[in-house]
Amino acid sequence: MHTWKLEIEYEGTRYRGWQIQHNAKTVQGELMSAARQLFASRVEIGGSGRTDAGVHAVGQIAHLRAPELKANVTPRQIQHGFNDLLPHDINVLKVTNAPENFDARRNAVARYYLYQISTRRTAFAKNFVWWIKDPLKVAEMQEAARLLVGRHDFYSFCEKEEEKTVSTSVEVVASEVFTDGDLICFRIGANRFLWKMVRRIVGMLAEVGRGNSSVADFGRLLKFQSNAAAKFTAPPSGLFLEKVLYKGDAPPAAQKSISLMG
Amino acid sequence: MHTWKLEIEYEGTRYRGWQIQHNAKTVQGELMSAARQLFASRVEIGGSGRTDAGVHAVGQIAHLRAPELKANVTPRQIQHGFNDLLPHDINVLKVTNAPENFDARRNAVARYYLYQISTRRTAFAKNFVWWIKDPLKVAEMQEAARLLVGRHDFYSFCEKEEEKTVSTSVEVVASEVFTDGDLICFRIGANRFLWKMVRRIVGMLAEVGRGNSSVADFGRLLKFQSNAAAKFTAPPSGLFLEKVLYKGDAPPAAQKSISLMG
Repeated sequence: MHTWKLEIEYEGTRYRGWQIQHNAKTVQGELMSAARQLFASRVEIGGSGRTDAGVHAVGQIAHLRAPELKANVTPRQIQHGFNDLLPHDINVLKVTNAPENFDARRNAVARYYLYQISTRRTAFAKNFVWWIKDPLKVAEMQEAARLLVGRHDFYSFCEKEEEKTVSTSVEVVASEVFTDGDLICFRIGANRFLWKMVRRIVGMLAEVGRGNSSVADFGRLLKFQSNAAAKFTAPPSGLFLEKVLYKGDAPPAAQKSISLMG
Repeated sequence: MHTWKLEIEYEGTRYRGWQIQHNAKTVQGELMSAARQLFASRVEIGGSGRTDAGVHAVGQIAHLRAPELKANVTPRQIQHGFNDLLPHDINVLKVTNAPENFDARRNAVARYYLYQISTRRTAFAKNFVWWIKDPLKVAEMQEAARLLVGRHDFYSFCEKEEEKTVSTSVEVVASEVFTDGDLICFRIGANRFLWKMVRRIVGMLAEVGRGNSSVADFGRLLKFQSNAAAKFTAPPSGLFLEKVLYKGDAPPAAQKSISLMG
């Protein structure tokens, strides 16, 4: 068996998320079905983490474990093999050889998500932004976002999973709000993410932006367990898994929105 | 009656082009149906020019002639009135008061189109680019594009319409190929455009880029009437009506691809 590292982008609109499911179109499912055709044998594909239905990725990472095809097959040939079989909205950006025990989820040291709010109606971006009609106070949103940096209990910002979550403690390494043209972007980096955590943070940041909630109210959600955020969950359309970091990788640098064609 | 100038963006994917038709979804048709609801009377909407099925616009201009709604109705209220009724992929960017006899087509002095070729597979951009797998020689494409500037007979680059076209002479004021990230963009400005003209120019530019055709071959299409370009018509997905100029307007400046969310 050999292990490869896959870098993948996808538009999540048509999929029921990353995670393979029976009777539902998923990103992992499409990759598995392409891999089975390519390798004609048992293969394993594991992502760095799940993304929900409608959520996109520009830098999802997965490991692929499969028998060597031929001694001389190159990572680039595997990339093209996948892309020839995959639907148009899933694209393997890069394939590299990886250590045999590389595990995309366990070895990841941080993940970065970017959420795009559009302050205007757009003809092209419905699936890629959350359009908010109300005027938003960006400075307040920026102040609130900064409160998330550090280790906190994100109980108030997560959906409780059926299997009991052991811990809701998360180490946030970056959390910022910035503007790019008509977009207000929220970027967050953390060691791990809880279910719906980013969308609930964004939902509450929007409430702060609208003036319905103060920065102090927002901060209190980190101190006291509350269910208030659940009803402000932002839609999945604006959310992108931007980058997954492994030992030695640099975080996303520029304050830039997602380039869909870049 | 009052005349307004409308600036409109749309994703052409779901439409059979701009021009209103019976039993087909068109951009003008959607605008007319919104206008009829807004004004509850006979209205006229005329675009600066037609775009074909699948072709997009970031700066289409139209005139709207309708009875004054109320003395105090603002252009901004009309814009919002349209957008509340229009489907998500058509967006009125701006409404301004116009001289009573303003005609979006007749008064236009130049139109600019931008065509996007992607040199890589993308998960997000299928509807907005033409993905070409072959390596393309950009310098040759640039040289060929420059030959178009000036007044030429574009007979070889147009689809003959059923109604006999009086003239195939076109004054090209700008024609350039530039790169932006993984995109190769072609921008052309002219006093008028013939049917399928831009897509056939792009199809032939791609042939030059592939090395199947020389710059000199390309230039000869302007001198001698030929049907060679017809079979290389580029797909509509990569084409955007970028800007329509009226007296005093500045042409598009920066060498930049289309910002779908900007």
